Amino acid sequence: MLSSGKSIMDWSEQLAQFSEPQWAEKNQLTCTYLTPAHIKTAAELQAIMREAGFDEVTTDAVGNVVGIYRSAHSSTDSQDSCVPVKTLLTGSHYDTVRNGGKYDGRLGILIPVACVAELVRQKRRLPFDFEVVGFSEEEGQRFRATFLASGALTGDFDPTWLAQQDADGVTMKQAMQTAGLSGDIADITQLKRDPSKYLGFVEAHIEQGPILCEGNLPLGVVTSINAGVRATCKITGLAAHAGTTPMNMRQDALLAAAEISLMAETRARQDDGSVATVGQMQVPGGSINVIPGECLFTLDMRAPFDHQRDALVNDILAQAHVIAERRGVHFDFTEVMRASAAPSDPQLQQRWERAVQSVGQPIFKLNSGAGHDAMKLHTIMPQAMLFVRGGNRGISHNPLEIISAEDAALATQAFMALLDGFQTDLASTK
Amino acid sequence: MLSSGKSIMDWSEQLAQFSEPQWAEKNQLTCTYLTPAHIKTAAELQAIMREAGFDEVTTDAVGNVVGIYRSAHSSTDSQDSCVPVKTLLTGSHYDTVRNGGKYDGRLGILIPVACVAELVRQKRRLPFDFEVVGFSEEEGQRFRATFLASGALTGDFDPTWLAQQDADGVTMKQAMQTAGLSGDIADITQLKRDPSKYLGFVEAHIEQGPILCEGNLPLGVVTSINAGVRATCKITGLAAHAGTTPMNMRQDALLAAAEISLMAETRARQDDGSVATVGQMQVPGGSINVIPGECLFTLDMRAPFDHQRDALVNDILAQAHVIAERRGVHFDFTEVMRASAAPSDPQLQQRWERAVQSVGQPIFKLNSGAGHDAMKLHTIMPQAMLFVRGGNRGISHNPLEIISAEDAALATQAFMALLDGFQTDLASTK
Repeated sequence: MLSSGKSIMDWSEQLAQFSEPQWAEKNQLTCTYLTPAHIKTAAELQAIMREAGFDEVTTDAVGNVVGIYRSAHSSTDSQDSCVPVKTLLTGSHYDTVRNGGKYDGRLGILIPVACVAELVRQKRRLPFDFEVVGFSEEEGQRFRATFLASGALTGDFDPTWLAQQDADGVTMKQAMQTAGLSGDIADITQLKRDPSKYLGFVEAHIEQGPILCEGNLPLGVVTSINAGVRATCKITGLAAHAGTTPMNMRQDALLAAAEISLMAETRARQDDGSVATVGQMQVPGGSINVIPGECLFTLDMRAPFDHQRDALVNDILAQAHVIAERRGVHFDFTEVMRASAAPSDPQLQQRWERAVQSVGQPIFKLNSGAGHDAMKLHTIMPQAMLFVRGGNRGISHNPLEIISAEDAALATQAFMALLDGFQTDLASTK
Repeated sequence: MLSSGKSIMDWSEQLAQFSEPQWAEKNQLTCTYLTPAHIKTAAELQAIMREAGFDEVTTDAVGNVVGIYRSAHSSTDSQDSCVPVKTLLTGSHYDTVRNGGKYDGRLGILIPVACVAELVRQKRRLPFDFEVVGFSEEEGQRFRATFLASGALTGDFDPTWLAQQDADGVTMKQAMQTAGLSGDIADITQLKRDPSKYLGFVEAHIEQGPILCEGNLPLGVVTSINAGVRATCKITGLAAHAGTTPMNMRQDALLAAAEISLMAETRARQDDGSVATVGQMQVPGGSINVIPGECLFTLDMRAPFDHQRDALVNDILAQAHVIAERRGVHFDFTEVMRASAAPSDPQLQQRWERAVQSVGQPIFKLNSGAGHDAMKLHTIMPQAMLFVRGGNRGISHNPLEIISAEDAALATQAFMALLDGFQTDLASTK
């Protein structure tokens, strides 16, 4: 199976050759929604899928590249067979962030493509249809419409997005029409999948974090995609002379923010899987010799479960108010984002666990701190994800993002084992 | 003596009527070096001094308004008297920061003016010449040449300053000539005082801090003008995904800066009179969902004595490196300013203490966190300062800066007592 790992590395390079001009000239990869580079990437992906042996390869109304590998008793032959054939859905995104990596998203398309290539080589069909989607958009880079591609499959495509303009004033509808799509909302609405026809959604993805790399583990089974809350915060204290105001007579806004940042760190460390981050901080109009009267900062808090996220946020908020009161300053908290957790479906997760075990790897479970297309599919069908180790301490959204051919091969083997597991189960329930 | 307090309040209003046009229209006071408002203020100050009864009132080559009240045996009559008559120097500045208060600086000119008015009323002469200087520049607002006026008296006027331009491209020399001064460095060099002819320098000043106000004390005796070090600091960590990087695998630059800020606060609190302030902090290019890879901040550290300041700075630096090492980040420290302490001359300070006691007030000693003209004079002669309580919790560099007529009167009484103390001592040593 190492050949499948090599194929994935080759395909990744093939896809990475299409980058937007100002990035390509710096040898950097940027592939945002429906740019010429993105359209060429989709065409290349179609070619790869066709060569792998998919029965149908199409591009849908939002630019998703959809490959279907039909079952032994395909639903198109349903008159011959009395068993309604279900579909296993998988995929990930082929767009990238600006100056991103070659594997974030794309690996989750290419692993199942490698599986289909292997099935074709073995002349095998599965007892279910296998649908592999290369989602056209996940990163929210060109338009403020993150997850629009997987959102189209779950009925969450917002019609007002079509009028949204990119930085150059091009609307999404114009971008679609330039790419040869209709840009017609009716065509997009039709993309919504009927969950009753699906076995569920599985997604393989590069971890985008250091856990597997540091743990020397090629594969990890995702237990949940984290719930999150983001907030902008403001401390209002009293600006005063840094030389003449004694330490015990200060209402220093920055020190309150510093204390809250460290408290949030301490609180997040108490949990298994929680994280809290202050990503931005500033003292508006601050001077080297003036005690900060105001301090602005951000808070990003995530946890594997909604209740754990809520406890984290509530504790941090409560303690922040205590700190502010003790320091004689005022604390303002404005929530700017709230996302629910997407815990893995227990049965699908167990399928991944068995699959990982069957390729001789330990079952290592972790939660996903980043959002993924699986979060969207979660709203309409069971989902579970497999993480693949990233090198360079798991760095992602960065040209340093890397995987090994060996890990790609192992992940493909595990994906094949997952498919085989479905096959066995479906056969036994017949 | 309450009338002297009222005079000081009236004179302060008279001087405050001259403000630069864009500030005057908002009813705000801004009087920076050699602007038309500043020149009018100097003329008004001259008029006030003449009316008070000074023997000589002049404007010198840097715009200082100098009033002299001659002794009973003035040095001009030195042929008649075999005793060489010395001079007691006092004064403060009449320029202001932008949108400043009416008392910062000016109070220290008007209190001795009120004393002279009282001496004239009593038809009394002192056994020494009394020289009151309204320093033209202390705040460094129009040109980067802070303390240029008192610096001219200590021989610290830098000739290259004359070519320095203000924000409108006007050089200092041009500004001087427009104001009717020669702008000739030879004239400025001549302003240097010969310390052997002086008894010393005393300065009254509004506290510009909350200590006297909170302590319900009208007057305070300054023990030292603080030594200080200012630095710009940089923490270099590793930017990473805020969602996917577990708490124990982070090299968060901001959290290191937060911990250093709180450590500096704790360390400064351990001393009597030390202060440490982080006035500015930012994460360059930071995002709400990215762990800060870099954090820039400032440190301002002050203490009453050089050795105390050095211990404060060294401890903060050492602990900052420990914090940085523990967090796996790099700490850079660039010193941008270092000023020596100006401890009060023990005998002059004792004169202030006796003067404060003689007006029925407790001797309350404090150090000055802000710099003052006395810092400059300190380099060539003994100096000691008296602080007068500011209302509104001592706020300064702000239109809310305020004093009471009662406190102004008490300060004048104390200044008179100081002069009387000199008189007694000089008489007894005759």
